[in-house]
Amino acid sequence: MPTLAHIGEDELVRRLTTGLPLDRSVLAGAGDDCAVLHAPPPGRHLLFKTDAVVEHIHFLRETPPRAIGRKALARVISDIAAMGGQPTHALITLVVRRATELRFIEELYSGVREVAQTFGVNIVGGETSRGDTTVISVSLLGQVSARRWSNRRGGKAGDALLVTGRLGGSIKGRHLDFTPRVKEAQWLVKKFTVHAMMDISDGLAKDLPRLAEASGVEFVVDESALPCTPGCTPGQAWGDGEDYELLLAVSPNSAARLETEWPRAFPKLELTRIGKFVAKGQGIAPSFATKGWDHFAGNS
Amino acid sequence: MPTLAHIGEDELVRRLTTGLPLDRSVLAGAGDDCAVLHAPPPGRHLLFKTDAVVEHIHFLRETPPRAIGRKALARVISDIAAMGGQPTHALITLVVRRATELRFIEELYSGVREVAQTFGVNIVGGETSRGDTTVISVSLLGQVSARRWSNRRGGKAGDALLVTGRLGGSIKGRHLDFTPRVKEAQWLVKKFTVHAMMDISDGLAKDLPRLAEASGVEFVVDESALPCTPGCTPGQAWGDGEDYELLLAVSPNSAARLETEWPRAFPKLELTRIGKFVAKGQGIAPSFATKGWDHFAGNS
Repeated sequence: MPTLAHIGEDELVRRLTTGLPLDRSVLAGAGDDCAVLHAPPPGRHLLFKTDAVVEHIHFLRETPPRAIGRKALARVISDIAAMGGQPTHALITLVVRRATELRFIEELYSGVREVAQTFGVNIVGGETSRGDTTVISVSLLGQVSARRWSNRRGGKAGDALLVTGRLGGSIKGRHLDFTPRVKEAQWLVKKFTVHAMMDISDGLAKDLPRLAEASGVEFVVDESALPCTPGCTPGQAWGDGEDYELLLAVSPNSAARLETEWPRAFPKLELTRIGKFVAKGQGIAPSFATKGWDHFAGNS
Repeated sequence: MPTLAHIGEDELVRRLTTGLPLDRSVLAGAGDDCAVLHAPPPGRHLLFKTDAVVEHIHFLRETPPRAIGRKALARVISDIAAMGGQPTHALITLVVRRATELRFIEELYSGVREVAQTFGVNIVGGETSRGDTTVISVSLLGQVSARRWSNRRGGKAGDALLVTGRLGGSIKGRHLDFTPRVKEAQWLVKKFTVHAMMDISDGLAKDLPRLAEASGVEFVVDESALPCTPGCTPGQAWGDGEDYELLLAVSPNSAARLETEWPRAFPKLELTRIGKFVAKGQGIAPSFATKGWDHFAGNS
């Protein structure tokens, strides 16, 4: 089997980047010192994010390389989605062992390209380097309406907390095969005043306290309401992570209207009210919050 | 000595990103799902680049961490410079072993911050992950005049080839302590019609053939003219790499004017004419081009 050592870096980059579909925003893509891109039009802000998946941590040596590639790009798209934004341009950095088979790299890249095509992302370059472990780092640009974008800082005491989809048990496969909620998030920020939003990557147990802390509030969770993946307990829905669903805070009035309009817009995806933001000092840790869980806003 | 395992990722990120100086282009920096940035004004294009430094490849375990951090950011700034651009916003991804000392990470980051401050770069986020080897991946945004930017593709037969500074022997220290040629490159694209330009990262032996190939030409080098670092042979100036100087192609008329105006603008930095582009089939490999050197445009 040919390996990276057989063909060298220039030839590898040529194979990976030839024939990449690019739209008219790209003035120079792979093959120059930098990508050169048309800036977003007036009224749009830039979004900029990077994320890495690392062997042994985010995937195993036996994970199919195409799934690794899909996950590497989809994770970052999920972050762009969390702002209500549209992903546009990506750079892919691969650190691989010298003995890595070309086929591994090519299949990994085909997973990246598959997700890029689905979400209209231009792959405009990247880099390969040798290293002692496999790392795929993805940098992603996006854009968002300057008037309508969500962040983590605007949550208020009294806000309803909602999540998309079902939570827990993603290790059984969904962590490799999730759908970033790009269109759902864009619909949300366009139609509603979203006080705070993020994607659930590390699990509600870590991410909800982060959202609360960024907004300067605490939270109460309705444990019986958590939308559990079939076969999962509420504790797993709380702690497992890698759900890549949206977590958002809106006013109670918005929540009522949202609960009416959501099923018409997205009949196949659940939206569940899981609790509310409360003032500092009034938060209650869920019953399955373990002693090791040191991120609760009230304790930090 | 405290390690990453002692404080955890959230606390580490908080320590690294607190107090980062940000200019008014930054609407949201570290701490949200994405950085949110004002887009460049009309008439400016975006530049987008990523680059990684990897333990054992780009630095050794005994390399001072501050120097590693400086190099990681300066390499990418050098790529933005090669387009005649201005670096603006960076994301820093660190992959480190769990047992890595906090002090190593903090010093590495202080090297990144030092270079960021020198070149007016906003550090707007990043990521840390555990892994079996140390990797620092930097993503950098920049901007450039839409009317004046250089690439690798516009070189013409007859163009003069010039380089800034001196070449060779960078392994003795300059590879950790070079100055990206940002202001020089901006001056060049503003004052002259630069047909093709790049930064010399892998060495003239690899980079000059790349520039020629991208422009569809070949080259002839005046071996006796190569500006060698004191103590280095022309063969070392040709092959060592990691010089991070500019390599550019301009018309012979521009070259003559440039050789007059350069010393007034940059009296402390040499600019040397090292050869010319010629039509395909007329290139001559330098005498020190070894058998292993398979990148010569005429042979590929």
